[in-house]
Amino acid sequence: MADWLSPQRGFSILKMQQGRLLPADDLIAVEEALEIRIAFGPSQRRTRHTLSVTMRTPGHDFDLVAGFLFCEGIIHKRSDILQMRYLGPDDGEDASPHILLADLRPGLTPNLDGQRRFGFSASACGACGKSSLEALRFEAPFPLPPESPRIDSTTLALIPAALQGRQPLFACTGGAHAAALFNPAGELLDTREDIGRHNALDKLIGAALAAQQLPLQEGICMVSGRAGYELVQKALMAGIPCMASVGAPSSLAVELARAHHMTLIGFFRETAWNVYSGEHRLNLV
Amino acid sequence: MADWLSPQRGFSILKMQQGRLLPADDLIAVEEALEIRIAFGPSQRRTRHTLSVTMRTPGHDFDLVAGFLFCEGIIHKRSDILQMRYLGPDDGEDASPHILLADLRPGLTPNLDGQRRFGFSASACGACGKSSLEALRFEAPFPLPPESPRIDSTTLALIPAALQGRQPLFACTGGAHAAALFNPAGELLDTREDIGRHNALDKLIGAALAAQQLPLQEGICMVSGRAGYELVQKALMAGIPCMASVGAPSSLAVELARAHHMTLIGFFRETAWNVYSGEHRLNLV
Repeated sequence: MADWLSPQRGFSILKMQQGRLLPADDLIAVEEALEIRIAFGPSQRRTRHTLSVTMRTPGHDFDLVAGFLFCEGIIHKRSDILQMRYLGPDDGEDASPHILLADLRPGLTPNLDGQRRFGFSASACGACGKSSLEALRFEAPFPLPPESPRIDSTTLALIPAALQGRQPLFACTGGAHAAALFNPAGELLDTREDIGRHNALDKLIGAALAAQQLPLQEGICMVSGRAGYELVQKALMAGIPCMASVGAPSSLAVELARAHHMTLIGFFRETAWNVYSGEHRLNLV
Repeated sequence: MADWLSPQRGFSILKMQQGRLLPADDLIAVEEALEIRIAFGPSQRRTRHTLSVTMRTPGHDFDLVAGFLFCEGIIHKRSDILQMRYLGPDDGEDASPHILLADLRPGLTPNLDGQRRFGFSASACGACGKSSLEALRFEAPFPLPPESPRIDSTTLALIPAALQGRQPLFACTGGAHAAALFNPAGELLDTREDIGRHNALDKLIGAALAAQQLPLQEGICMVSGRAGYELVQKALMAGIPCMASVGAPSSLAVELARAHHMTLIGFFRETAWNVYSGEHRLNLV
């Protein structure tokens, strides 16, 4: 693996322990900027546009970009992207492993006015003053299956332990988030890590998109951190009916999950957890 | 406090414990969108521009916006903002408690081309392929004092406990980040909470800006989560010479702290921590 693609990097640091400061070698999760550009329009007159600069951990960049573009509504299937590549010497700029260009298929005109950082405009939620209601009305491309999958509580209880051994970046750095996909039998299907929670889920969804697995109607998504609005929204975009987070959810995440009858679980441990929404999918066994 | 300004909200949920699902009342940290707009230009022809939509916990919104504008380099002192207000009925749109308008003083023309989401362009870091080097070169308005403050390790050890009792939103929801400011005697000067790590620090810096306390040259900033590039950058903007995070730092955060000789501490606990940069400010006592 090229050095600049390594997800962790060694640093010489000092450790304070028992009142002494001792030198140590440490592995730290890499954070690097990735500029996401798209090219679109007729083949004679391609337009290039920078969509986002995200701070990410290198690795699985193509998954990240595909998942991001999908979750932002820019693309609708993986084949909407003809090609992805890092900026090269033929692009009229310095080549860069930190700028990724996604060539969209001719005929696909992304709605950049509507490019929604958060899926809605805050101006729409002023009337009530209570909740960003417009956020709850966003249209997911796949409606969730209303009843399925049925998930046994004893199966669910196995999931946290199953993920623990599958976070190599976290294991060596202590500073990375994970997003993982399980089936209703509690089997780990895929996992991605990143210094950013949102990136980890974008990578997971981007990989599923490339494998033509969307909608993930049988999927249980586990995330290592808290469950905010954006994570629930991304899961809904991918048609995932159940999300479980190690940490707390936010109010808006709960409201969004409830509006879409998604099963949302928080403070997820083997022996105890909170169910905030969609408890009808849980079998107590 | 108006209901829409409450930082937590009650939800009826279900708790899974010992194989049973029981109803419970729960408090959840509120996440709501805040659209940050600025008005600038000559008094006859004011221009309005939306800078950002951030997901934040309501409360201390004026601190949040002032801190954000300062850390983004849009304003340089608090008096660059003539007035802040939520969008009202005279603004030609629906009034909204989720859109905050900051009126900049005439004569201040914000550089919106240069509005830097991350303080740099990713395109500048392609040559090396190793590090977003341009990010490390950003110009902080206040150089850090090269040697001071001197911080006793025994004083530092008291800080985590001092913060624990001062996170009311976290205490009742388990889902909020904190940013806190201490002096070298280990006394807590101020603290802010938010569902977003960056918002909590923006609020803390915005409050210090309003109190004309910048640069915070004697400040020790503690953050509840991990220390990423953006948090270190915000602290540098405020002239804070020492940051300690409960979680891990990122590679870019360490590199940025080292480039500016800032003291950066991670995995911060009472009895042990890692020093990633700027150990010369620490007295082992």
